[in-house]
Amino acid sequence: MFKYVFGVDLGGTTVKIGLLSTSGEKIEVWEIPTRKEQNGKYILGDIAKSVRSKMDEKNITDSEVMGVGIGAPGPVDAKGVIYKAVNLGWDKFDLEEELHSIIKLPVKAGNDANVAALGEAWKGGGKGYKNMLLVTLGTGVGGGIINEGKILTGATGAGGEIGHIHIEDNEEDTCGCGNRGCFEQYASATGAVTLAKRELVASNEESTLRSENDLTCKIIFDAAKAGDPLAKRVVEKYGYYLGKGLAAVASVINPEAIVLGGGVSKCGEILFDLLKPSYEKYVFHGSKDVKFALAQLGNDAGIFGAARMLVDQE
Amino acid sequence: MFKYVFGVDLGGTTVKIGLLSTSGEKIEVWEIPTRKEQNGKYILGDIAKSVRSKMDEKNITDSEVMGVGIGAPGPVDAKGVIYKAVNLGWDKFDLEEELHSIIKLPVKAGNDANVAALGEAWKGGGKGYKNMLLVTLGTGVGGGIINEGKILTGATGAGGEIGHIHIEDNEEDTCGCGNRGCFEQYASATGAVTLAKRELVASNEESTLRSENDLTCKIIFDAAKAGDPLAKRVVEKYGYYLGKGLAAVASVINPEAIVLGGGVSKCGEILFDLLKPSYEKYVFHGSKDVKFALAQLGNDAGIFGAARMLVDQE
Repeated sequence: MFKYVFGVDLGGTTVKIGLLSTSGEKIEVWEIPTRKEQNGKYILGDIAKSVRSKMDEKNITDSEVMGVGIGAPGPVDAKGVIYKAVNLGWDKFDLEEELHSIIKLPVKAGNDANVAALGEAWKGGGKGYKNMLLVTLGTGVGGGIINEGKILTGATGAGGEIGHIHIEDNEEDTCGCGNRGCFEQYASATGAVTLAKRELVASNEESTLRSENDLTCKIIFDAAKAGDPLAKRVVEKYGYYLGKGLAAVASVINPEAIVLGGGVSKCGEILFDLLKPSYEKYVFHGSKDVKFALAQLGNDAGIFGAARMLVDQE
Repeated sequence: MFKYVFGVDLGGTTVKIGLLSTSGEKIEVWEIPTRKEQNGKYILGDIAKSVRSKMDEKNITDSEVMGVGIGAPGPVDAKGVIYKAVNLGWDKFDLEEELHSIIKLPVKAGNDANVAALGEAWKGGGKGYKNMLLVTLGTGVGGGIINEGKILTGATGAGGEIGHIHIEDNEEDTCGCGNRGCFEQYASATGAVTLAKRELVASNEESTLRSENDLTCKIIFDAAKAGDPLAKRVVEKYGYYLGKGLAAVASVINPEAIVLGGGVSKCGEILFDLLKPSYEKYVFHGSKDVKFALAQLGNDAGIFGAARMLVDQE
């Protein structure tokens, strides 16, 4: 009878490892450094050693462990092959098979953003929804799609990578990807700052934002909440683009819920009010009644989702 | 041991029923009229009777039949509940349960466009691909998404309903849905005719299209193939929009293959050449290497896909 499952969130600096019960209670979470030297050849060995020593410490036997799930920063296909992880120095290889051969426990691997979505669907803002979209609004825009309780991986692990869908025809600036008018150019934290800077140069209107040397998304939203008219227009534009992009995604996959995570989501439920007008304008009517929610697990989403990939296999 | 499976394609005028082997060989296909009187109350009974009499005729026993799959013209959720089928006079009810109670065989139900996608993935243009998008280019634009070999149904059966994703900001005409700039306004057969009419009024340039009283998509494509410069520009614009819309969908779901069906797909592989420049321009790089193919099953896609929903359950 399985009692435990491990969830591993592999990042560019640290590896976060969680020991969970198979029903999803967090028993212990710890971190080890991500050793990137020699193209990251030590990373999986370090993880295996750390998991094994935790099992020794807690007198956990192999037969009690359902397995080890791992979310990695790169595209991972449905068979657990990772295509590349620039941050770690990894090229394409069978991540599931490789980690399994070292750790001698069942392994499931996924892309970190997709795995985080699965975590939020299991124990976070998307709890109770089998069809869910997690959108991570940070420096860029990431995403993960949960379809009937499982990650929509896609052909090469790029399922749910929605940051570069085209949402605006009349854009003159170029996105980091080389295109113009990508979702991420507006709906990321960086995008909010860009929108504010544009508004500031477009007029001489007074605004508390003018005195800021280092504009951030939080400063803009705080100014809007405090009643600054220019900042209010900026967050309305931000909401317009966020809603427009989410409408495109929702029209394709028809989710029950859309969960907002990442730094911008700390602005709270005001985001829903801001995005809804354009969401409802642009979405296919069959997907109009979606539930909006905020992510709840923060940095723990990865370990929950990674563990969930195993529990799913029951 | 199951030998047979029935696939039912329920349309507004006729019901097409297929008797297939469980490995997907077509044994017999026949049609019965769709009796729409009294809000379609006779439809399921007629289907059950027709299936049962075919079983009698062929001496097929219940234990040899894997079940009956049905594709219906309306949104059907993952549990087999249909939300509405305007063409049939149906309101929301549990289609799977209802048909099962009459036919006394296992039943699976799905939306007709999604079911057709499953058929093409099983035995048609998407054969061999577990992650596939079928796009039906007809009077409107329909679609179905296959994820890991199964239909992506979505929360309320609107998964893959991609005709009304917004793809053009600078549109002045209103779509049937009330929005402006929907995929269907350009990429449907109707859309191709609209694009041609716009091109014809924009100049006095000579074109064989001017002598046509009743422009159709086929006439436009034939004129383009015959070298008419104006018609060539029209089909290039058509391809531009088709590629742009498909790029949006593919960036969300990362399919292995995109299969084009419906009337416009009869124009053939020239469509791929027309759509690829804008597809590759707008798509997220992780989904650039998709395979394009033409649908192969025509009107049989529905019965194959309906049957496949059962075979899937093995």
